[in-house]
Amino acid sequence: MQKVTVIGGDLRMVKLVEMLARDNYEVYTYALEKAESISKLENVIQTETIQEALQDRKVVIGPIPLSSNNISINTPFSEESITIEELAQVLDEKIFIAGNIKSELYEYTKGKNVQILDLLDREELVVLNTISTAEGAIQIAMEETNSTIHGSNILVMGYGRVGKIVAHMLKGIGANVYCEARKNVDLAWIRAYGYVPIRLNELNRTLQNYDIVINTIPSMVLDERRLQYLKKECLIIDLASNPGGVDRIASKKLGIKTIWALSLPGKVAPLTSAEFIRDTIYNILKEMEN
Amino acid sequence: MQKVTVIGGDLRMVKLVEMLARDNYEVYTYALEKAESISKLENVIQTETIQEALQDRKVVIGPIPLSSNNISINTPFSEESITIEELAQVLDEKIFIAGNIKSELYEYTKGKNVQILDLLDREELVVLNTISTAEGAIQIAMEETNSTIHGSNILVMGYGRVGKIVAHMLKGIGANVYCEARKNVDLAWIRAYGYVPIRLNELNRTLQNYDIVINTIPSMVLDERRLQYLKKECLIIDLASNPGGVDRIASKKLGIKTIWALSLPGKVAPLTSAEFIRDTIYNILKEMEN
Amino acid sequence: MQKVTVIGGDLRMVKLVEMLARDNYEVYTYALEKAESISKLENVIQTETIQEALQDRKVVIGPIPLSSNNISINTPFSEESITIEELAQVLDEKIFIAGNIKSELYEYTKGKNVQILDLLDREELVVLNTISTAEGAIQIAMEETNSTIHGSNILVMGYGRVGKIVAHMLKGIGANVYCEARKNVDLAWIRAYGYVPIRLNELNRTLQNYDIVINTIPSMVLDERRLQYLKKECLIIDLASNPGGVDRIASKKLGIKTIWALSLPGKVAPLTSAEFIRDTIYNILKEMEN
Amino acid sequence: MQKVTVIGGDLRMVKLVEMLARDNYEVYTYALEKAESISKLENVIQTETIQEALQDRKVVIGPIPLSSNNISINTPFSEESITIEELAQVLDEKIFIAGNIKSELYEYTKGKNVQILDLLDREELVVLNTISTAEGAIQIAMEETNSTIHGSNILVMGYGRVGKIVAHMLKGIGANVYCEARKNVDLAWIRAYGYVPIRLNELNRTLQNYDIVINTIPSMVLDERRLQYLKKECLIIDLASNPGGVDRIASKKLGIKTIWALSLPGKVAPLTSAEFIRDTIYNILKEMEN
Repeated sequence: MQKVTVIGGDLRMVKLVEMLARDNYEVYTYALEKAESISKLENVIQTETIQEALQDRKVVIGPIPLSSNNISINTPFSEESITIEELAQVLDEKIFIAGNIKSELYEYTKGKNVQILDLLDREELVVLNTISTAEGAIQIAMEETNSTIHGSNILVMGYGRVGKIVAHMLKGIGANVYCEARKNVDLAWIRAYGYVPIRLNELNRTLQNYDIVINTIPSMVLDERRLQYLKKECLIIDLASNPGGVDRIASKKLGIKTIWALSLPGKVAPLTSAEFIRDTIYNILKEMEN
Repeated sequence: MQKVTVIGGDLRMVKLVEMLARDNYEVYTYALEKAESISKLENVIQTETIQEALQDRKVVIGPIPLSSNNISINTPFSEESITIEELAQVLDEKIFIAGNIKSELYEYTKGKNVQILDLLDREELVVLNTISTAEGAIQIAMEETNSTIHGSNILVMGYGRVGKIVAHMLKGIGANVYCEARKNVDLAWIRAYGYVPIRLNELNRTLQNYDIVINTIPSMVLDERRLQYLKKECLIIDLASNPGGVDRIASKKLGIKTIWALSLPGKVAPLTSAEFIRDTIYNILKEMEN
Repeated sequence: MQKVTVIGGDLRMVKLVEMLARDNYEVYTYALEKAESISKLENVIQTETIQEALQDRKVVIGPIPLSSNNISINTPFSEESITIEELAQVLDEKIFIAGNIKSELYEYTKGKNVQILDLLDREELVVLNTISTAEGAIQIAMEETNSTIHGSNILVMGYGRVGKIVAHMLKGIGANVYCEARKNVDLAWIRAYGYVPIRLNELNRTLQNYDIVINTIPSMVLDERRLQYLKKECLIIDLASNPGGVDRIASKKLGIKTIWALSLPGKVAPLTSAEFIRDTIYNILKEMEN
Repeated sequence: MQKVTVIGGDLRMVKLVEMLARDNYEVYTYALEKAESISKLENVIQTETIQEALQDRKVVIGPIPLSSNNISINTPFSEESITIEELAQVLDEKIFIAGNIKSELYEYTKGKNVQILDLLDREELVVLNTISTAEGAIQIAMEETNSTIHGSNILVMGYGRVGKIVAHMLKGIGANVYCEARKNVDLAWIRAYGYVPIRLNELNRTLQNYDIVINTIPSMVLDERRLQYLKKECLIIDLASNPGGVDRIASKKLGIKTIWALSLPGKVAPLTSAEFIRDTIYNILKEMEN
């Protein structure tokens, strides 16, 4: 039976522990003592110290993101506080897998023999997470409007990973889907998948038609001038990471409801997220064997 | 300019008034005085008495449902209380269109020259409303689970109107859709549309696979015995009208989350519902011309 | 091991024999001696006389259609000629299953204890066959045009069984699908499934837009006047049974390519048709047990 | 009115001339004299010499592919023979757009002021052409099997451009779609779009399940060993460019029907191909203006 250690983390990590145990891993946990669902599982050993959790285990899995303050690691299911520095002390000779790992851990582990793997560098996980992001956006669209998605005119701005999947799902429910992109090749893909392609220079004159605009472009595309073309009843969902793609002050002034939705996978589908993390970790372990 | 009267009703009726006004009807309203959005519209005349609202107008539109207590009609946007009896008094020589009209109105208007049309007898409206019902069910599924719809195993019980559309949308988002039906011809349709057909006599041995069960059959199909086959984490959404299709006492005892969701169209998509009502009323008016 | 008899029929019957044998039936055949694929199969016994084929067997399966001339039954894989009258002589105490059985057989078996079942009366088979019909129509559309289905404007006339499935598949490949229907409830379904609904009275002014028209209505809907609205390059595929729905003389005069495509399931997908027939026969046998 | 020259080419070029004329271009043609459809078009001038065709025009459009023998250019709609060398002589100061242009033209135009643009270097055209390739593959699948696509188990090997679109369309018709890929990120996309992901190392044990295999990988993936796992009735469609991805000698020996389908867009949908070429040329012209 293979052994693995999990330290800290949110509900996704708790679910991950459950799955690993079910898949016949012996899982040593630390800083998850408040997660009741795993306390009585057969293959799970909750340890009292971080040293105990790591002893004789090669692979150590940490939170996603590792830390929110760049000082201590995220342990919402624990009373314990573990600094990144403390964590670094015990990682010698280990493979450490976590998410969004900042420079601090790399510095503290300098000179140690640690292999650090950031899950958010794994492109397959980023792709899989777009499934949850897309569904989260659709859930918001359902909750924040008085209309059905079906039959609505919806603009998706940007045809990257999230744009692709959210457009696919929206069409699957019955929306009229318009996709904005700059590059001719992206417009060709949009056409191939059956959405209405919108060039950036045609955007303004179409804006008044949309019931919902979902933005995925991380730069100020919906500035004050463009917002003025939208219907007052239009809903904007901004999925772009900081600083977002919407002039939120202008949209507020214009009375256009704007939702800035970040980190949806962990919020709307922690269980599915945990499955995706597990599959990615299995991919990593498989690659190591080869 | 054609003239029409709207009396009472909920947010759908308010939206309907807005649409009729936009489509160049002159709309006389009564018992909607608290609906701010229509108070300043150009083609809308809010009257002080019910007689004034009806004078010289042929077509009178009332609430859906007409009444909740079989005594007075539904007027949530008004301080006024109008009994069915009072309404009946003023309907002579009118065409009266409302929803879920019970026997009282027919009795009170006996001997009068009234044409009463129940919107819920209009099959096209019932079909259109399934769009909203299906999306409402999907919204509930998103909100009440920790997983994505995408990739989930979902059983739809019953392949009537709602079953057809909810299965179609679920597949569009990426669920693995199973449809239960009794009749061979329904099972053939299920196969033609690409879902997995489940015969009633095969149902029990598949129940453990589902993450979500959506019931549309208005009889006790999910009784205690069947519920025991389900996973504890399974979510049941019961869309069947009274008395529903789930033994709710048993599901509670077994710890299986069960949501009994009724009247979704008005709740999740009042604007879309109003559009569907408008389109149906236009169909009715067109048929009368012929 | 259950025993069954198969007499005559085309490639679909040959494939049916193969499948029944594979499913562990002992299959006695007559008038299929030229079908090489079944001549060496383990569970298949090719008999020399019709009496031998039927002896001690309860269920007898015949051709689809039973006869093309109302005198002898269809036996394209045989040198034998069997009249309906001869067949009738040997069916006493049998269950006889075939397709499109005309009055002759009923008359010749009067007074005998025969249960006659027409497969084309089985609604589930009719529905399943629409899958093959729809694919056959799409194959024709691909072969007879210089364009892709994807991106084409395609009108489906009539929203019955075939209309439903051909519209569904066309949309799946990426066509812009328009569906014509008369009844409001059908137009509601068309809208629910995401096609553009076209009322009969709006039809004429939209006709010039279509690249392909697929007709399923068995009455003269595409008369000379309507044909004149179509583009010269438009392709018409008429799936309606005799007398079809297109004025073929007018369409020829106008130079509009028109394909009258009948009996597609047996032509484009005999193997799939055989599977559907088998499944329907199993349904029949199951119902008889109960 | 803008002027443009078109020299030689197949049916796609003829259709392109028609479209350019319809879009109000003045089109000078040479070596297309046998194309009747354009001989009487208003904006089309068929010239007698190549010099006349080019005089005062800036943009010159040539065949796709430019040449099949690397000596003369392709002119199937003409009695004329034009060598690449002759063509090169008259291109000074021109923009020349054609497809699959080999080194000869570049050498012959050395020292001249010619801007040469190869349409097949345009990624948007390559993407759009996959639409036609995918449909062509589906047409072949329909023609070469006795079954419907709907309900068939179909493996798509390789998840590049063609793989993506052919999988999308196959699912749209109702096939059970399996996609083989090597990279974890591609497998994640396959999962996101709802196909069954097949890792290369799991391939062999699934091969017996497929009714159709569509290969898009341009290296010998279906070697003799793998072919032996397939059903005898399986159809292989190889879309990979030379040398293809199937051991054709072995497949023949095994009796597995194998279709090597190249250059489908021009064959199955020349009109659509012409539209895609036109759109791409318009993109090129627009980019030149900026």
